[in-house]
Amino acid sequence: MIPIVSIVGKSGSGKTTLLEKVVAELTGRGYKVGTIKHDVHGFEIDYEGKDSWRHKRAGAATVVLSGPGKIAVVKDVAEEWDIARLGLTFIDDADIIITEGYKKAGYPKIEVIRKAKSTKSICRKDKNLIAVTSDIKFKCRDMPCIDINDAKGIANFIEKRFLQKQAYNETVDLMVNGKHITLKPFIEGMLVETIKGMLKPLKGCSNQRNIEIRMKT
Amino acid sequence: MIPIVSIVGKSGSGKTTLLEKVVAELTGRGYKVGTIKHDVHGFEIDYEGKDSWRHKRAGAATVVLSGPGKIAVVKDVAEEWDIARLGLTFIDDADIIITEGYKKAGYPKIEVIRKAKSTKSICRKDKNLIAVTSDIKFKCRDMPCIDINDAKGIANFIEKRFLQKQAYNETVDLMVNGKHITLKPFIEGMLVETIKGMLKPLKGCSNQRNIEIRMKT
Repeated sequence: MIPIVSIVGKSGSGKTTLLEKVVAELTGRGYKVGTIKHDVHGFEIDYEGKDSWRHKRAGAATVVLSGPGKIAVVKDVAEEWDIARLGLTFIDDADIIITEGYKKAGYPKIEVIRKAKSTKSICRKDKNLIAVTSDIKFKCRDMPCIDINDAKGIANFIEKRFLQKQAYNETVDLMVNGKHITLKPFIEGMLVETIKGMLKPLKGCSNQRNIEIRMKT
Repeated sequence: MIPIVSIVGKSGSGKTTLLEKVVAELTGRGYKVGTIKHDVHGFEIDYEGKDSWRHKRAGAATVVLSGPGKIAVVKDVAEEWDIARLGLTFIDDADIIITEGYKKAGYPKIEVIRKAKSTKSICRKDKNLIAVTSDIKFKCRDMPCIDINDAKGIANFIEKRFLQKQAYNETVDLMVNGKHITLKPFIEGMLVETIKGMLKPLKGCSNQRNIEIRMKT
């Protein structure tokens, strides 16, 4: 699984602005970044009258637009997908996933605290909080408190923590009924080698860099 | 793989209008429809200034918005994805995929011919052409020519051809390096049963309705 870090904080604390700066900084360093925004109040993305909007309005459950170098998707879902499912389905090719929001999810979090909004952490009891970024000198015992305007410093912290580990040679991700399943190394190895072995003699499967299997049973 | 049918025709022939009517008709009959629009000239979907637009502008290669009941994705891709890859990645849960465009792809096609634009078929030599819909009495030897305003008739044709077959009890789709691989029944059965057998004893895998495995090797 691609490393995931969440930018959390109160509404209006400046999460989007911080995320923009950090994404620009990491992208500038050559990393490929995927972002996931948690929009609890819903959102509009499509222009009224555009073809994709017309497809959706006609009743399509999923609308995909595919153009040169770019894809867009608007999709109805019965229940909200968690970060792992969103990441595995839509972000196949990034070095890191940065989420805006998702303070209740169990991924490492950086909290934005802006004094105009609040001077208290909303995640102070959360063991996944790994840093605070603020425009006040915040008292952090066990973690860095980085200036809210220091995008480079925040990017450095993320890079060091998530991006400088040895890249895996082989990765496998399993989802069952939309839930990501963590595999023990022995099981993972058995699964990888068995599938590779079965597919190897098949036409079109000799150079197996990316394998995706979807089964409905 | 979910059945795929393409609505093709000259620019301005009324593909979107026809697709809208057919999607509304099929949705009204209880089918779940996914659509893929081929936008060869590119497209804009996001509103300037919105958070997702800001994420993208900052450099994110993929931006996902997740809200109640709805997901949106904007994604950069190095090269255009084919219909199979788009469908398998983004449309996991439809009864049928209807594409707008893709006259060069190898899926069954319904051509829209509107006399204000043209009176000739652009697919007359294409063995995948299965019907014509037009506002002129078109001479079709081997296939139905349905009135362009008869959305019910076109939906009936699609329903009969693609949606009334016995649903598969088990399906498996394999993609290797982004290409959909067609499996022979024996290989498919071996793959399904082997994977199911390996996963069955694992925690969280006992009730395996949907299994997705992604491997990078």
